[in-house]
Amino acid sequence: MDELGLVRRIRSLAKGSGSDVVLGIGDDAAIFRPRPGEDLVFTTDLLVEDVHFRRDTHPPDAVGHKALARGLSDVAAMGAEPRFCLLSLALAPCCDRKWVYAFYRGLLRLARKTGTPLIGGDLAHAEKITCDIVVCGAVPKGKALRRDGAQPGDLLYVTGKLGGSALGLSLGEGPGCKRHLRPQARLEAGRVIRERIKASAGMDLSDGLSIDLHRLCEASGVAAEIDQPLPIFPGATLDQALHGGEDYELLFTASPKSAVPSKIGSLPVTRIGRIVKGKAGSVKLYGEPLLPLGYDHFRRT
Amino acid sequence: MDELGLVRRIRSLAKGSGSDVVLGIGDDAAIFRPRPGEDLVFTTDLLVEDVHFRRDTHPPDAVGHKALARGLSDVAAMGAEPRFCLLSLALAPCCDRKWVYAFYRGLLRLARKTGTPLIGGDLAHAEKITCDIVVCGAVPKGKALRRDGAQPGDLLYVTGKLGGSALGLSLGEGPGCKRHLRPQARLEAGRVIRERIKASAGMDLSDGLSIDLHRLCEASGVAAEIDQPLPIFPGATLDQALHGGEDYELLFTASPKSAVPSKIGSLPVTRIGRIVKGKAGSVKLYGEPLLPLGYDHFRRT
Repeated sequence: MDELGLVRRIRSLAKGSGSDVVLGIGDDAAIFRPRPGEDLVFTTDLLVEDVHFRRDTHPPDAVGHKALARGLSDVAAMGAEPRFCLLSLALAPCCDRKWVYAFYRGLLRLARKTGTPLIGGDLAHAEKITCDIVVCGAVPKGKALRRDGAQPGDLLYVTGKLGGSALGLSLGEGPGCKRHLRPQARLEAGRVIRERIKASAGMDLSDGLSIDLHRLCEASGVAAEIDQPLPIFPGATLDQALHGGEDYELLFTASPKSAVPSKIGSLPVTRIGRIVKGKAGSVKLYGEPLLPLGYDHFRRT
Repeated sequence: MDELGLVRRIRSLAKGSGSDVVLGIGDDAAIFRPRPGEDLVFTTDLLVEDVHFRRDTHPPDAVGHKALARGLSDVAAMGAEPRFCLLSLALAPCCDRKWVYAFYRGLLRLARKTGTPLIGGDLAHAEKITCDIVVCGAVPKGKALRRDGAQPGDLLYVTGKLGGSALGLSLGEGPGCKRHLRPQARLEAGRVIRERIKASAGMDLSDGLSIDLHRLCEASGVAAEIDQPLPIFPGATLDQALHGGEDYELLFTASPKSAVPSKIGSLPVTRIGRIVKGKAGSVKLYGEPLLPLGYDHFRRT
């Protein structure tokens, strides 16, 4: 397996790019032609072996899927439609040809399903497998769904059920496991939340409701109160639903005047609380302060 | 050092973004508003501890500088002007606050100098420091300088002197060392090569002339002959100039009718050979086959 051969193979696997992709994999840089009247959103997400996943519990195609799903979830959280992705991949000595191709199969299957062509990236070697995905999405000019627009009086909602991924991680089997290994980015819900619900703020739940809601409130300069029952994934604990992380559901706020459906497609939407005046970033759960105990890369080191 | 605090600090260090940046660090994704009539180019580059750099020989600000310079060099190679960058950074347990801030200072100094605001990215921890830079550049629609346009009969040029970085790496001191630690992306030269010289193909020399010229010829479906003396960095060997890598000079081809100056600013431009018909990707040096012996991440593992 040499680098030139691997790039050639990835290029042939990744074939079939969007009409706005002028040049894909193989040059110094990829070329993209933006459509008029659109803003572009950009996100990057690292996925590191033994930090975000383990080689013995995560099949390579699930790692590829998850690498892209994490980036797509950020794009969904902006209410954007994916346009393309790039992938930087550092391979460990243990990665054989079979691992690498299975990884790309998982990533490219999701790429095709969501209309996100892989147009470039970088390859290197390292001691541990390290992936960094870059996803670009597009929204009508000025319409991206940001974190900083929540207003006191707005109501607070989440999509789906919370704690499933943490449950799956702890049990290593069962329905939560699929959630953990092959998360779904809520692209359709993100579009509806931006366009039809006209949410005032939104973000994805990647590190846990407690820390992510804290971040949304901090960005908006407001406080929040969770005063309704949480939609907990069957079998998960309240702790897993609050602090678990990796659910990749969407959290959003909307004016009480907005018509918020109870479902988007088959995905439930649940009102869990409201935005209030108060210390920016502070969150209460059923009247008690809720600490941001979700995942923080550096608190634990 | 916690993640929220670190992000806050990086955001304040990175302040002052371009007018086309709608939203920088802090949300799920950054928002960028493209200018009409432009194509965007995208590149990502990994920089991994103990693969691309060593902590004991590379000061943190040089690592930050180099992470961005590698991406900017790809943008230069497309004849593009940088617009913004994102950085994914996985920090090792050894990285203290001092290391992290010095790293960002090095990166952001170059970012400011080249008009490349840092608008987002990701943070994680890992066993080894791993950076992945994403750089976006812009060129007038349809005008990007690609690798695949070289024609038999075109002349072959390089900017600057070759082998300096390999010399600096081997000696650990002297003028080559600066080349190795703080490479300069040839942004102005890239623009001139695209706009005034109207080069038929171009790329940057990141892995070594022998392998990079092979890649350019392969992409263009042509062969090349190096038949002129190479501009060798003072003190470097012919081997270092041919296979050394990390010079970040530009390699380009132009029709014999193009007026190619002997300097761009103070940067020398040297004709080193010509493009010929032949097996796609094959290169001769003074009449003998030249193997692509530059850096390949996977050949050696």
